[in-house]
Amino acid sequence: MIKKISSLQNPLIKQWVTIKEKSRARKRLGIFMVEGIRETSLALKGGCAIETLIFNPDLVSVSEVEDLKQENTQLIEVSKEIYHRLAYRATTEGILAIAKSKNNTLESLKFNTKTPLILIAEAPEKPGNIGALLRTADAANIDAVIIANPKTDLYNPNIIRSSIGCLFTNQVATGTTTEIIEFLNTNNINIYCAALQASSPYYLQDFSQATAIIVGSEATGLTKEWLRHSTKNIIIPMQGAIDSMNVSVAAGILIFEAKRQRGF
Amino acid sequence: MIKKISSLQNPLIKQWVTIKEKSRARKRLGIFMVEGIRETSLALKGGCAIETLIFNPDLVSVSEVEDLKQENTQLIEVSKEIYHRLAYRATTEGILAIAKSKNNTLESLKFNTKTPLILIAEAPEKPGNIGALLRTADAANIDAVIIANPKTDLYNPNIIRSSIGCLFTNQVATGTTTEIIEFLNTNNINIYCAALQASSPYYLQDFSQATAIIVGSEATGLTKEWLRHSTKNIIIPMQGAIDSMNVSVAAGILIFEAKRQRGF
Repeated sequence: MIKKISSLQNPLIKQWVTIKEKSRARKRLGIFMVEGIRETSLALKGGCAIETLIFNPDLVSVSEVEDLKQENTQLIEVSKEIYHRLAYRATTEGILAIAKSKNNTLESLKFNTKTPLILIAEAPEKPGNIGALLRTADAANIDAVIIANPKTDLYNPNIIRSSIGCLFTNQVATGTTTEIIEFLNTNNINIYCAALQASSPYYLQDFSQATAIIVGSEATGLTKEWLRHSTKNIIIPMQGAIDSMNVSVAAGILIFEAKRQRGF
Repeated sequence: MIKKISSLQNPLIKQWVTIKEKSRARKRLGIFMVEGIRETSLALKGGCAIETLIFNPDLVSVSEVEDLKQENTQLIEVSKEIYHRLAYRATTEGILAIAKSKNNTLESLKFNTKTPLILIAEAPEKPGNIGALLRTADAANIDAVIIANPKTDLYNPNIIRSSIGCLFTNQVATGTTTEIIEFLNTNNINIYCAALQASSPYYLQDFSQATAIIVGSEATGLTKEWLRHSTKNIIIPMQGAIDSMNVSVAAGILIFEAKRQRGF
């Protein structure tokens, strides 16, 4: 049965606007919003439960919506006005999903190998950078991405959008720096901190063992806590006028050097 | 002598607003606008002639402005209102420069080595991606960056801003794909095209000779013209759910593999 909603004053619509805009509401209710067919399909593949599919029949066919339905998913048809209030893209596909947040704790991470390759970013400033990190992690098919001391929740619409769905194709966790260091030590995973003040070039390290590569924020780099607990601090030698690189580019270079050493 | 302007109707102010906003005006007049002390200082280092320094004395001291002065630079003090009309940043430093565009033709490129390393991007969609490419190129200190079939002029404020001044620290040229291929052939520079349909993994190539690495747009990849004239089409093996990577991340991985092979 497809329910129809045509009033912006409907309490469900109001709740979804809050979900879209407020990290606190997403956390409290344990749900988030996905936009687009491809992203929703990746969220499904990634094991997210889809509570509701919201669609506008002028923009998308009901059969396309039904392809994305799970057993308990409710379908809701909305007017164009409501759709555009909820959607964040200008050129859009007519479909939005309300999904249940996954358990993104460190304890939820599962590794199929004794030598996992993990990317950790501490307090990345921009959702767009997290999205790019997730795309790189997906391309390299690494074992997990961990965000330390996150500045936003993972289900920020800008992270979902810039990751083009890779938020769902990776194992992702968050935690404080202290918790993550303890987790890595418990699991005997080497800690390689990317640091400008480091003396060991990254390409001279052996990344064939269990490896976590840690990158900091572009403005301030990694905190001392990471550097103190590092197996080795590594540097990408920079030879230009400015000692600076986009954090997702730096992470890409390090991750793919590890992949190269591991023979892909 | 410092001139003062306090009317938004002043024809110079009107011209500068146009310079800031319109690619066509920048091209016609051969000038562009830089914002901030660091960026202006890098433009100076990079050999740009600074025609005018525009400043607001509540935001920056005259001595800081004079440090950025060349022999023929005119200093113009403006009101806060005018300053904010001209500036694009919210948190700003009180200083803007009007600089002469450089000669960014292929003929202007000079190489100090017989084995230059060059990064070429064809029709990149976003100024922010060009900025990130320029930062990577600076960090790797490669010999040139070339933009093929550019969608905007190089002096787009978003390119300058996202390159954090690396537009000025690199040798940069633009041209059509046809012109650039001819240039590379004339100079005996190998052409390595990054392509999803390629069969040779990038890390098995020998980048020690004169090398150009070519990356395409994220949406459509490289045009056939590039692929037809390629020395070798190379691929970054992708093992995830989505065959896609941010163009500046891909370029970073390829450039730094070349640097690694060359022993930095």
